[in-house]
Amino acid sequence: MDDRLRKQLDFLLEIDKEKEIYRQTHILGGSRRENDAEHAWHMAIMAFVLQEYANEPVDVLRVMKMVLMHDLVEIYAGDTYAYDETGKESQRERELAAADKIFGMLPEDQEQEFRAIWEEFEEKKSPEAKFARMLDNYQPLSLNNANQGGDWRAHNVARSQVEKRNEISKEGSQLMGQVIADIIEENVRKGNLRDA
Amino acid sequence: MDDRLRKQLDFLLEIDKEKEIYRQTHILGGSRRENDAEHAWHMAIMAFVLQEYANEPVDVLRVMKMVLMHDLVEIYAGDTYAYDETGKESQRERELAAADKIFGMLPEDQEQEFRAIWEEFEEKKSPEAKFARMLDNYQPLSLNNANQGGDWRAHNVARSQVEKRNEISKEGSQLMGQVIADIIEENVRKGNLRDA
Repeated sequence: MDDRLRKQLDFLLEIDKEKEIYRQTHILGGSRRENDAEHAWHMAIMAFVLQEYANEPVDVLRVMKMVLMHDLVEIYAGDTYAYDETGKESQRERELAAADKIFGMLPEDQEQEFRAIWEEFEEKKSPEAKFARMLDNYQPLSLNNANQGGDWRAHNVARSQVEKRNEISKEGSQLMGQVIADIIEENVRKGNLRDA
Repeated sequence: MDDRLRKQLDFLLEIDKEKEIYRQTHILGGSRRENDAEHAWHMAIMAFVLQEYANEPVDVLRVMKMVLMHDLVEIYAGDTYAYDETGKESQRERELAAADKIFGMLPEDQEQEFRAIWEEFEEKKSPEAKFARMLDNYQPLSLNNANQGGDWRAHNVARSQVEKRNEISKEGSQLMGQVIADIIEENVRKGNLRDA
């Protein structure tokens, strides 16, 4: 087998480890936490079902690659909970080292391509990245909303924290940003989110 | 919220149930079985890493939609193991009813689009469907090979059964078909696959 194919197949086996990176969010019904691979799959289907609501036209293939790969760095850097302010301080550094390692397994052209897509997601500037960020917010929120806000209650999350994350969602999709705002409102009313 | 968006969001919540459809294949390391959502995520990344090896040029966005959605029907029809000949007899009928139900949740234009993509995968005729079928074979095989063939041994699988499934893989990618053939050979030698 030639070196290029060997690298690609080794990378594809290594990423299986993303199935063991568990998030704070629970799957529908609440029986267990979901992992990064499931989260990414869910977001990728959301990308093409909801693409019509992007504020600007998006290259949906690029969005899908972005969401499918955005958490690969967590194989080495671990998951950082959205509302863990201490963990977030070291997050960027940990994830950069992880990106070198995971994308560095690929042939150089693919390493550059996928690394660039990941960096684009991190920078939150392109229409594709903003739309992907909205999906990254909506996906766990939709589950948590269906599960009576259990994850928010467990972590004593305040509405202002969720609203802060929702700013970028509105830049990706005004309509979905409004859907998220309505869900926040409802969960404050139900006592699932602290009104602070 | 308008009816169209309501239908889309209800569909996107319903498909979460795919995370609870467990397959016979174990994740890397063998600690537990993998589920359909993880399997689909893995295949979608394989689709764009390995697209250069397709026998015919493929629309990779279509391949990705196909692999991400190909097992949604199993939410209602359950997983049928690749080498379960009895289960496979009723599989088509069960899955057709499931397709009506799951894709029927979407607005009509998306229902038609996604149903057509699923049917294309089932028919195994287009270059995209053949390439996706190769991925559907290679993904569990790569894990099972890394896990010392545990799933084949547990089900007493014969090389001829795996080889039969590999015919369509070669139509999708000659090179990946050869990779699979080499893995089969190695596992027969190791006693993980029955030489029959």
